[in-house]
Amino acid sequence: MENKQSPETAMTRRSLLINAGKCAIGAAGVTALASTMPGMVSKAQALGGPTEKWPWPYVKLDPDKTAELAYNEWYRVFCGAAVISSVFSQLREKVGEPYKSFPVDSFVFLEGGMAGWGTVCGSNAGANIVSNLIVGPRIAGPECEHGHTIGSDMMDWYSNNALPTFTPKEPKQKTAIIQTTSESPLCHISVGKWMKKSGFALASPERKDRCARVAASVAYKLVMDLNAWKDGKFTPKSTWTPGKTVGITGQQNCTECHGTNVPTPPSAKK
Amino acid sequence: MENKQSPETAMTRRSLLINAGKCAIGAAGVTALASTMPGMVSKAQALGGPTEKWPWPYVKLDPDKTAELAYNEWYRVFCGAAVISSVFSQLREKVGEPYKSFPVDSFVFLEGGMAGWGTVCGSNAGANIVSNLIVGPRIAGPECEHGHTIGSDMMDWYSNNALPTFTPKEPKQKTAIIQTTSESPLCHISVGKWMKKSGFALASPERKDRCARVAASVAYKLVMDLNAWKDGKFTPKSTWTPGKTVGITGQQNCTECHGTNVPTPPSAKK
Repeated sequence: MENKQSPETAMTRRSLLINAGKCAIGAAGVTALASTMPGMVSKAQALGGPTEKWPWPYVKLDPDKTAELAYNEWYRVFCGAAVISSVFSQLREKVGEPYKSFPVDSFVFLEGGMAGWGTVCGSNAGANIVSNLIVGPRIAGPECEHGHTIGSDMMDWYSNNALPTFTPKEPKQKTAIIQTTSESPLCHISVGKWMKKSGFALASPERKDRCARVAASVAYKLVMDLNAWKDGKFTPKSTWTPGKTVGITGQQNCTECHGTNVPTPPSAKK
Repeated sequence: MENKQSPETAMTRRSLLINAGKCAIGAAGVTALASTMPGMVSKAQALGGPTEKWPWPYVKLDPDKTAELAYNEWYRVFCGAAVISSVFSQLREKVGEPYKSFPVDSFVFLEGGMAGWGTVCGSNAGANIVSNLIVGPRIAGPECEHGHTIGSDMMDWYSNNALPTFTPKEPKQKTAIIQTTSESPLCHISVGKWMKKSGFALASPERKDRCARVAASVAYKLVMDLNAWKDGKFTPKSTWTPGKTVGITGQQNCTECHGTNVPTPPSAKK
């Protein structure tokens, strides 16, 4: 896997290849790594709680059922928590722990791009949380890296496809919901482009149903990807590596905010 | 408390005043609410896991110690997980569960504005996660609303202050780290403005130390606010209600991307 993150990430990932095959970062593992490569890992040791052993047990889920759950849950807990709930409510029944003890409803705050601030769409954030909880964080070793790549792929797919793709069996809004392509993983831009094209206000039932369907669309793809990963067949499609290719963390739509005057970031010393 | 979110939120919050005094959304509570107000709550019931009773037990923490922990943890798990770890590692020792069972290290993906995409700064996301886990989500009733407001206040503070504010006792970079005001809770804008003013690249040790100090600064304020909440003295300072005041979820820096041509969102039917 090539690096998906800023340059320091590559260093850390390479250093962690030592841990290949392990998918947990208990204190012992990090201490060993730190003693092998002083300075590569800080003095702080891994916390190593009981749920910090990955992957979490996963059984394949039905994407249609998951999307229906996410759609309905949106009207209770909004986008981010709806995506998490759609997957975890099923795994609480089919698997039990650690899903039962994960506080899904605390993630209501992902709504509106985090408490209404229009930053990352909660559906993207919820999908990243699910994939990194189940598969694990990339620092836990190569066996866990698809937690990161499933999440990053979701933001790429979300940005570059006309959404929503999913239509619920019993939609709360019977009228057609138009699709728009956000070119961004951000709530403000995704919702704003849809509002502009549809003419519906933020407070309209149509906008709410659009966002419920977007959450459902994301939940559908998330389960498709998790099922593929479970079968050992998940391959990341995104090639977006902004830290590496453009020298700053970012989206793919530079000119949308910067116009033709896209700044050049300071470059690293050779 | 006035509504901090889009208009539908106000409706949900008012409906949930019925639950005043309760700070848990078990299935029974939501069923009762749904039967009282059909249509206000979806068919989906609250999950009601064992950790979904708020507030979680909290003991006041030392902000300096927390900030030092966050600074050092940045070099292991990066911004978002560092903020969570700085608070939860202490509460794992002082309180125990449910902190021991929360998988802190899964949140490494918050790095670089979520897997490098430059969306919300992971320090802001981590702070929102901590406040909404400890205090609870706003849908759990008025007793829990400061989970939401502490998180939202953090994004306001982050956007409008020169950061980093915290200097660690043993900084990894001995040179001065300049401060910049992002006017945004986004990683791309926060890091970009700092890189522009400082001249340092994303991959530079100085940029890394700047971000570690920002995580520490956020952790410091987070604990100050949680301590005030514990004493019953937390008062939100942010008055930013974009859904209500500008008709779309968003930040405060409209003209930075839109120039003088800020679009007018479609308005709701009267």
